[in-house]
Amino acid sequence: MWPGCSSFGYGAMQELGPFRVNSDGKTLYRNQYAWNNVANVIFLESPAGVGFSYSNTSSDYTKTGDKSTAMDSYTFLLNWLERFPQYKTRDLFITGESYAGHYVPQLADTILTYNKLTNHTVINLKGIAVGNGWIDDNMCGKGMYEYFWTHALNSDETHEGIQRYCDFESGNLTGECSKYQSRGDTEIGSIDIYDIYAPPCDSAAKKPGSSPATNYDSNFDPCSDDYTNSYLNLAEVQEALHAKASVWYPCRGVGWTDSPATILPTINRLISSGINTWIYSGDTDGRVPITSSRYSVNALKLPVETTWRPWYSSNEVGGYLVGYKGLTLITVRGAGHMVPSYQPQRALTMISFFLLGELPPEFTS
Amino acid sequence: MWPGCSSFGYGAMQELGPFRVNSDGKTLYRNQYAWNNVANVIFLESPAGVGFSYSNTSSDYTKTGDKSTAMDSYTFLLNWLERFPQYKTRDLFITGESYAGHYVPQLADTILTYNKLTNHTVINLKGIAVGNGWIDDNMCGKGMYEYFWTHALNSDETHEGIQRYCDFESGNLTGECSKYQSRGDTEIGSIDIYDIYAPPCDSAAKKPGSSPATNYDSNFDPCSDDYTNSYLNLAEVQEALHAKASVWYPCRGVGWTDSPATILPTINRLISSGINTWIYSGDTDGRVPITSSRYSVNALKLPVETTWRPWYSSNEVGGYLVGYKGLTLITVRGAGHMVPSYQPQRALTMISFFLLGELPPEFTS
Repeated sequence: MWPGCSSFGYGAMQELGPFRVNSDGKTLYRNQYAWNNVANVIFLESPAGVGFSYSNTSSDYTKTGDKSTAMDSYTFLLNWLERFPQYKTRDLFITGESYAGHYVPQLADTILTYNKLTNHTVINLKGIAVGNGWIDDNMCGKGMYEYFWTHALNSDETHEGIQRYCDFESGNLTGECSKYQSRGDTEIGSIDIYDIYAPPCDSAAKKPGSSPATNYDSNFDPCSDDYTNSYLNLAEVQEALHAKASVWYPCRGVGWTDSPATILPTINRLISSGINTWIYSGDTDGRVPITSSRYSVNALKLPVETTWRPWYSSNEVGGYLVGYKGLTLITVRGAGHMVPSYQPQRALTMISFFLLGELPPEFTS
Repeated sequence: MWPGCSSFGYGAMQELGPFRVNSDGKTLYRNQYAWNNVANVIFLESPAGVGFSYSNTSSDYTKTGDKSTAMDSYTFLLNWLERFPQYKTRDLFITGESYAGHYVPQLADTILTYNKLTNHTVINLKGIAVGNGWIDDNMCGKGMYEYFWTHALNSDETHEGIQRYCDFESGNLTGECSKYQSRGDTEIGSIDIYDIYAPPCDSAAKKPGSSPATNYDSNFDPCSDDYTNSYLNLAEVQEALHAKASVWYPCRGVGWTDSPATILPTINRLISSGINTWIYSGDTDGRVPITSSRYSVNALKLPVETTWRPWYSSNEVGGYLVGYKGLTLITVRGAGHMVPSYQPQRALTMISFFLLGELPPEFTS
């Protein structure tokens, strides 16, 4: 969610990468729905200090933020293209989830800015896709409690209190508002807010003799975090990855100096520049839920070009979409926060069409 | 949903009964979460003509309705108690789902009425539990489209049209309202409205070589309908059940003569008579969703005695509940319309506490 989590430990090893870790924490199996079926994929740890990345300047860990992250990521891309010049002419797409609702648009914006400078490497940025992304503080806060109530996780009284005391449009959240928000947080009880219907790790997969919990066709194991953590801390794995031998953490605390309250102006700039912009959302995530993405996108007041409709993957409703001028809002049905973990097939269908610049099919085949 | 479906084919064979049918359509396996772990359970086919039940009077099939169903069910109970008098002194609880939102309160009301007559068998009715029940036409209609929108199955435009043109409070649904409702029905696409995140039968279980789809710990197979249909049409099964040899149908069309628009006055009478009343709801059902149950119960304007909170089953959030004076509204997390099919363990925990007249635990143990 917040800055500091590893793109390699989550994105690559548990979501859309070619391999996932078995429950032994030592061996791998193939993810048949890996996104590198349809693209060359780079996983970038950002900011410095996250995952296997590191800096020799300690202030990089404590005084970091949106701006330095965007600039560092851009520098990485330039250097990477110098090292592998055969990719310089390729189309580039940037995707990310959660707080990458900041990172992705900001990196895209940085690329466009530098592309305009003469004598500078031009990066062929074509599109961005942001999943369950934190885009606008006010709209995301509003959407979360709206989701809690409409999904029968919160009481009517809490909802009414939040409606009365939290002014999300202005961002003026009073003390009474906080009290009702805390009440809402307590009322949901001990569920996995990142996938409200998922089983917890301890009851599902670790029961001796039971098969791993499966979320329909996804086979996502809620204990994957533990397996990945074990795997990436094996000395031979770190060596094989050419990583610095270290204790690997899935997330680390980082001191943050700048985080704009809204990324909507940045997204507007990208749309104006013709960058294909997709906002996608796993619809069983309660942390940055579809309501948050909906409120955020609605705030852009873009005209509708393709009216809301289901889209299909493997003869099932993969989710729903609405096409605005320059932006597509698309849901992935039955997926939590980490969309390709829970619904790998649907996620691959979605991203394949994103790369083609097309909308996924309107009818079951 | 509508009258005419078999309590034996659904309730007993796919939901809460001791056995479920294997995918061969010929053999059974034990349901470890059967409700007869905690009670003696009778499954009643109603009205006459449904499932294996039949009548020698053809008008029973074409001119039936709520009143005759309640009276016939009551007559059945009296006769059954005469035949098995050792049960006459036992506590009785009545449960049912969907259109049984009519049947269950009406049968309970009939029992209370006849209990007051002197020289009449007194039936010790203690409580009723109605799951995803059709209780009030207006509130159920309102709740369904509200659920579609808040679960990102419908567009903002459709929601706004329904808000504008459908007056659910008065039940005055204009032609414009119908147009927007149809649009909402189309927008959801080809999903299982009775469990919005469930896979369809054809893709999940019938794929050769794949294991049956599992909804986390439930192991519910979306093709169960087919297996049950095959099983109950085997000649040897019909003979063993002492049923009349016939073509068995899961549901049949019935001519309905009376169906009040609301059952809320009946529920009010039951509450006044001290009948413990539970309204439960699987929260991933889109047909009679939790929003419908919430609106219906809110219309009773009962004072809250136990504020909304999670309840636990096997160290997981089984759902949420709110206790009103005389009535408990309780959800089952991650369950569709047929609650014990999708979440058998949570359903058994819930019904066990219902039988005890207690609320399920507030904290994980």
